[in-house]
Amino acid sequence: MKQTASYKCFGGEVRTYTHAAETTRCAMTFSVYLPPAASEAGRARPPVIYYLSGLTCTDQNALTKAGLQAHAAARNVALVFPDTSPRGYSPAIENDSTSWDFGLGASFYVRATTERWRDHYNMYDYVVSELPALLERELPDALDHKRRSIMGHSMGGHGALVCALKNPGRYVSVSAFAPVCNPVNCPWGVKAFTGYLGADTSAWRAWDACELVRAYAGPPVSVLVDQGTADSFLAQKQLLPDALVEAAKHSKLVSLHLRFQGGYDHSYYFMLTFGRDHVDFHADALERAARL
Amino acid sequence: MKQTASYKCFGGEVRTYTHAAETTRCAMTFSVYLPPAASEAGRARPPVIYYLSGLTCTDQNALTKAGLQAHAAARNVALVFPDTSPRGYSPAIENDSTSWDFGLGASFYVRATTERWRDHYNMYDYVVSELPALLERELPDALDHKRRSIMGHSMGGHGALVCALKNPGRYVSVSAFAPVCNPVNCPWGVKAFTGYLGADTSAWRAWDACELVRAYAGPPVSVLVDQGTADSFLAQKQLLPDALVEAAKHSKLVSLHLRFQGGYDHSYYFMLTFGRDHVDFHADALERAARL
Repeated sequence: MKQTASYKCFGGEVRTYTHAAETTRCAMTFSVYLPPAASEAGRARPPVIYYLSGLTCTDQNALTKAGLQAHAAARNVALVFPDTSPRGYSPAIENDSTSWDFGLGASFYVRATTERWRDHYNMYDYVVSELPALLERELPDALDHKRRSIMGHSMGGHGALVCALKNPGRYVSVSAFAPVCNPVNCPWGVKAFTGYLGADTSAWRAWDACELVRAYAGPPVSVLVDQGTADSFLAQKQLLPDALVEAAKHSKLVSLHLRFQGGYDHSYYFMLTFGRDHVDFHADALERAARL
Repeated sequence: MKQTASYKCFGGEVRTYTHAAETTRCAMTFSVYLPPAASEAGRARPPVIYYLSGLTCTDQNALTKAGLQAHAAARNVALVFPDTSPRGYSPAIENDSTSWDFGLGASFYVRATTERWRDHYNMYDYVVSELPALLERELPDALDHKRRSIMGHSMGGHGALVCALKNPGRYVSVSAFAPVCNPVNCPWGVKAFTGYLGADTSAWRAWDACELVRAYAGPPVSVLVDQGTADSFLAQKQLLPDALVEAAKHSKLVSLHLRFQGGYDHSYYFMLTFGRDHVDFHADALERAARL
């Protein structure tokens, strides 16, 4: 993997890398934030929070706008910002088959099965398996590779929930801002799943957070979700947090803490405001995990 | 003036406005951040920190990337983000006469005197006079219009220093990130001043922070400056902080606190890291001013 940028930030370092990815069969870009302690001898290696962004974003949006680095530095956790889809492998497909809510920048973090998308749109495997393995291989001493959490925004909130719920025990904690909670029942999700998974809706359930909560049989897991009440996509029924509440109500293993935040919308100002709560939520859980 | 956007942020509100400006003879866009206290009865009206951005920026860059709203909310100060130049009044001039470091997005916050620029490039008057008067007229109860401070980045750091030093007592405090300290002696400044002020270099001195420090005869003023040591524009001798240190050394009235920050560059990650120090510096000074 090749480092393409480096910026000092809160005593630590923002880095951007590119590498040839096997799961998506193209060059992928991602960024990391390493807190200051990572470079100091004798300090504990930081655990990692994966941050999955929403529709149209790249690795850069949350990195530059969500202000999470301040909190990560304070709590000695690293942040990893993957891209939101494969890019650049085929300009023809990208021009002909994608829109702002499907294809480029809109992977929905699944493992695609349809002929047009299955060779590349495997962001689920990229995020859950390939990227952590790459970091362990390339940055063996910079991170505590045994402890990781995951969070995300909107489509990335869906991605975070799905990655965590499909892999009990792999993530210490999971949180989301304004996640797409029930994609099988919202326009974004129906469009994405039809395209990536095909018309047979029975295959969609394995990628729906509400279905995964109902089916969850792993160790008890705590989920923090913030949802702004002035979010236009909430009004458009793209997010459907009530469905997640209903699913979690019947689960003895998934403990959902969903907060409706009055007057906040879907923007990065919302994440800027509550990002500290999320990093602290994960840092607390990661510290508990270190003591086990 | 017309509000074009509103976002809740840290309990307060980000707003963007457009209005027809007299000093620049075109429609101008600016943004404000109002801390939460502003909307609560019985709380003190917040004073205002003006934030002047650097080359190529608009009102949006620092608003979305510098994370200052958290600190402004905590200290009950408002933030105002003007644009960096007039825009849109003449596509022909903008296409033919501007480059990334001159013209559009690069006003250098002067009052232009050359024929091509004097009708519009009066950002100094816009920032110092027109915008505060507009806010007092349009938002009479939202802000404490009697107390204001000013800060900026790069070209905007130059602008902040010049606005404060040319108007003793008008700003309670002034600070800058990586300011262009001595424009009459750096390539950016020479290009800008030749264009906006003409070839007679004697007219340039009235817009050079070092010259203004030497000539300063107002009440004692405290200036905070942060400069990253890994800033490529420092190496290119565009910023010249040593000249500002030298000028302040001989002033009994200008107290300069210039901090070299090891390893930091010219990016918004630098401002993200030290923004809290600057807001606290201004909030402390503004609180002292309120008690006078």
